[in-house]
Amino acid sequence: MFTNNMAARMKMFRQPIQRLVMGNLHKNCGHPERLNRCWKLCSQQARPLTSVPNSDKQYTVVTEKDGIRKIHLNDPKKRNALSLAMLQSLKRDLLHKSADQELRVIILSAEGPVFSSGHDLKELTSATGREFHRKVFDACTEVMLLLQEIHVPVIAQVAGLATAAGCQLVASCDIAVASEKARFGTPGAKVGLFCSTPGVALGRAVPRKVAMEMLFTGDTISAQDALQHGLISKIVPEDKLEEETQNVARKICEYSSSVIALGKSCFYSQMRRSREDAYREASQVMIDNLSLKDGQEGIHAFIKKGHPTWSHSWDKAHD
Amino acid sequence: MFTNNMAARMKMFRQPIQRLVMGNLHKNCGHPERLNRCWKLCSQQARPLTSVPNSDKQYTVVTEKDGIRKIHLNDPKKRNALSLAMLQSLKRDLLHKSADQELRVIILSAEGPVFSSGHDLKELTSATGREFHRKVFDACTEVMLLLQEIHVPVIAQVAGLATAAGCQLVASCDIAVASEKARFGTPGAKVGLFCSTPGVALGRAVPRKVAMEMLFTGDTISAQDALQHGLISKIVPEDKLEEETQNVARKICEYSSSVIALGKSCFYSQMRRSREDAYREASQVMIDNLSLKDGQEGIHAFIKKGHPTWSHSWDKAHD
Amino acid sequence: MFTNNMAARMKMFRQPIQRLVMGNLHKNCGHPERLNRCWKLCSQQARPLTSVPNSDKQYTVVTEKDGIRKIHLNDPKKRNALSLAMLQSLKRDLLHKSADQELRVIILSAEGPVFSSGHDLKELTSATGREFHRKVFDACTEVMLLLQEIHVPVIAQVAGLATAAGCQLVASCDIAVASEKARFGTPGAKVGLFCSTPGVALGRAVPRKVAMEMLFTGDTISAQDALQHGLISKIVPEDKLEEETQNVARKICEYSSSVIALGKSCFYSQMRRSREDAYREASQVMIDNLSLKDGQEGIHAFIKKGHPTWSHSWDKAHD
Repeated sequence: MFTNNMAARMKMFRQPIQRLVMGNLHKNCGHPERLNRCWKLCSQQARPLTSVPNSDKQYTVVTEKDGIRKIHLNDPKKRNALSLAMLQSLKRDLLHKSADQELRVIILSAEGPVFSSGHDLKELTSATGREFHRKVFDACTEVMLLLQEIHVPVIAQVAGLATAAGCQLVASCDIAVASEKARFGTPGAKVGLFCSTPGVALGRAVPRKVAMEMLFTGDTISAQDALQHGLISKIVPEDKLEEETQNVARKICEYSSSVIALGKSCFYSQMRRSREDAYREASQVMIDNLSLKDGQEGIHAFIKKGHPTWSHSWDKAHD
Repeated sequence: MFTNNMAARMKMFRQPIQRLVMGNLHKNCGHPERLNRCWKLCSQQARPLTSVPNSDKQYTVVTEKDGIRKIHLNDPKKRNALSLAMLQSLKRDLLHKSADQELRVIILSAEGPVFSSGHDLKELTSATGREFHRKVFDACTEVMLLLQEIHVPVIAQVAGLATAAGCQLVASCDIAVASEKARFGTPGAKVGLFCSTPGVALGRAVPRKVAMEMLFTGDTISAQDALQHGLISKIVPEDKLEEETQNVARKICEYSSSVIALGKSCFYSQMRRSREDAYREASQVMIDNLSLKDGQEGIHAFIKKGHPTWSHSWDKAHD
Repeated sequence: MFTNNMAARMKMFRQPIQRLVMGNLHKNCGHPERLNRCWKLCSQQARPLTSVPNSDKQYTVVTEKDGIRKIHLNDPKKRNALSLAMLQSLKRDLLHKSADQELRVIILSAEGPVFSSGHDLKELTSATGREFHRKVFDACTEVMLLLQEIHVPVIAQVAGLATAAGCQLVASCDIAVASEKARFGTPGAKVGLFCSTPGVALGRAVPRKVAMEMLFTGDTISAQDALQHGLISKIVPEDKLEEETQNVARKICEYSSSVIALGKSCFYSQMRRSREDAYREASQVMIDNLSLKDGQEGIHAFIKKGHPTWSHSWDKAHD
């Protein structure tokens, strides 16, 4: 069990923090499949950021400062299409040193008026063939699931148009801050390719009637409608988008990263359960959270009306 | 599997398109129960529209033009109550030649100020008895499930009041366009018959707190509140209701009907799964969609900036 | 089965109504675990209201009039913290004579500007220890689940701030009426204790993006946003809060309490099922509801345009 063996395991493995966190949390959650997935992810060697094998093109540009990693989609001429190369670049950028204690938040943003137009249709012709298509959708699913499995919050910063798999990308982030000019749509039916995979994320983000109208008509919705229906978290004026997204990110950086990691993992895990089982899991996580040094640090600071000093670690305050 | 055997099966059966589509899709989805259901539905003989056995009364009036079938509830004196005869009439109209390639969209509308007031309470007394009651609720459930199982999108066009099973009917359609004067409610508690079956559809369409207040108080909500909470897709001025609903329907008619069928079936199927399993199913559907002639037609038209010419068929572009 | 044996069982047991109702309903639902839970709850002796063992402090003040029980959180100095004593007091107040036919609705309100600030952090230090923490979270989960298992509707009346487990309490009620000045938040991350258990209720009440932003940033949302996203049912001016909440409660009192109990139980039960299974269960409940004396009373009153006189009993009109 997570609780009893946490200290022991930390000594034993001396492994990167993410490996420990995600491994433990998923053992705790009892999802062997997800556990395997994580171990596989984490056992990949960290690779240099943003370079694509056999290519000089930089699909994404990554900057990192004060714990905030910004992954910037950088293919504006192709409307930031989620080509296989773009998806692989995104995956690398998400995973790169993601176990570092320093990393606290990831922001996904984009160059140009289009956040992302979804899959690169030129890659999806009969000429490339079924096996290549499968590779594209496997890579896409991997990125979409990774956004929720990764231990730091991921924020979409959306200035413009997000369509099809681009809309799916926004729907799959934890938080989405959008300009009042942003628009969202799933127009696949127009090009004979129904947005079935975007529908997985969209159908879990907005009411069914809203999802179905978007999917069947291909019409885009405004940022205001997206907010009303839960597709995004916040609307801000266009010229405040960068600043407001940074504000949300900085707020999260003020908290203990181990507490945030515990909370994020528990949220997605309990949401797939019945209410009773969800409470069973979440109660155990609360009790474990209280046993952390940072759990007690925060409570004592609150009681003494002081400021907490986080360790951002998995050190224990009590067994 | 859907993919490998699709061409083979098409040759073998030479059966109506719906039988093939729904059979295949459901086999693909792995729901033997739903599969059986479909085969049963599709093996029923197509019957003439709108006539009720042993009755001259026309509970519904059906028109069909340019692929848009309009089923008009036609019992305004009884506030379009969902009597057993009305439910049977609805079922017949939904299924009648529903496998025809020509059919693209179904619109449900109603005569008079009441869209539908729900079950006919005179049918639900002790005098008619438990077995008859069961027949009514079985027929009702069958219609409600059919709305989502049928391969074309179904749009509710709501001018007035939709209550109890009438509200359930709206909640069960894929899309709902309503006049700004429309109202929605589940007032069963007032007559000693809690809206438990309407609650199945309502509770999956709107947030739980909204559903519970409607169910416990019996109060109606406005079209504006219904839109805000996801019960309907769109509000339009009363005098634009017909036109705007037609616009939505015509938009859907512009797309390939096989692609729309594939997308509708996948959406409802994946929504009952975990996110991971949903992606597994939807990715396979995307790959299958790309192998369709219409999938490739749309993509090539997009690349060449031309207009696609759909076959509306299950013809393949590649294996 | 519920239906066939209902009359027989009523004679056999001659037990308090709640025991019968909940036992039957849960047997009907096929949840042996929930059934056991109910029997355990119901077999507890009713204890005097609001007194806490070994304490003179009244954590809650209870009044009951015309079938409306008001449970008033009464620890304003501690911002109505959900200490173990407060949770135990709440549980007792919820269960006390809850089987009485007279009880129709429960309202949860609070003294002072804070509805509830959540757990009492002083109880959650290393000094009290892991086993005590477990006791607190078990008691909390028990109260939260009880709100939905109890056979009468529970309404939260929220004048001010509801945070952390206080926000969870609001999210767990059936209905929530709030002042326009009310605010809601899950700021646990600020004190190093992520709101994982509040997230169980919050994540099932509002869209995921809204829940995640509240949980990660710790920011509060306004009553207006809470309404838009489904966390509450209704907003009223501050000086109308008492009156409007009473109006909702009185409306529910006008209906048959057995019909309301049947409906509440069925709603939560069917919501955990697939659509098909949900319809199977709810259809059976409709048929059973029609066999009740109050089911037929309501229908006959409606047909004759008279006023129903409820028995509030489980007496049958037909088998």
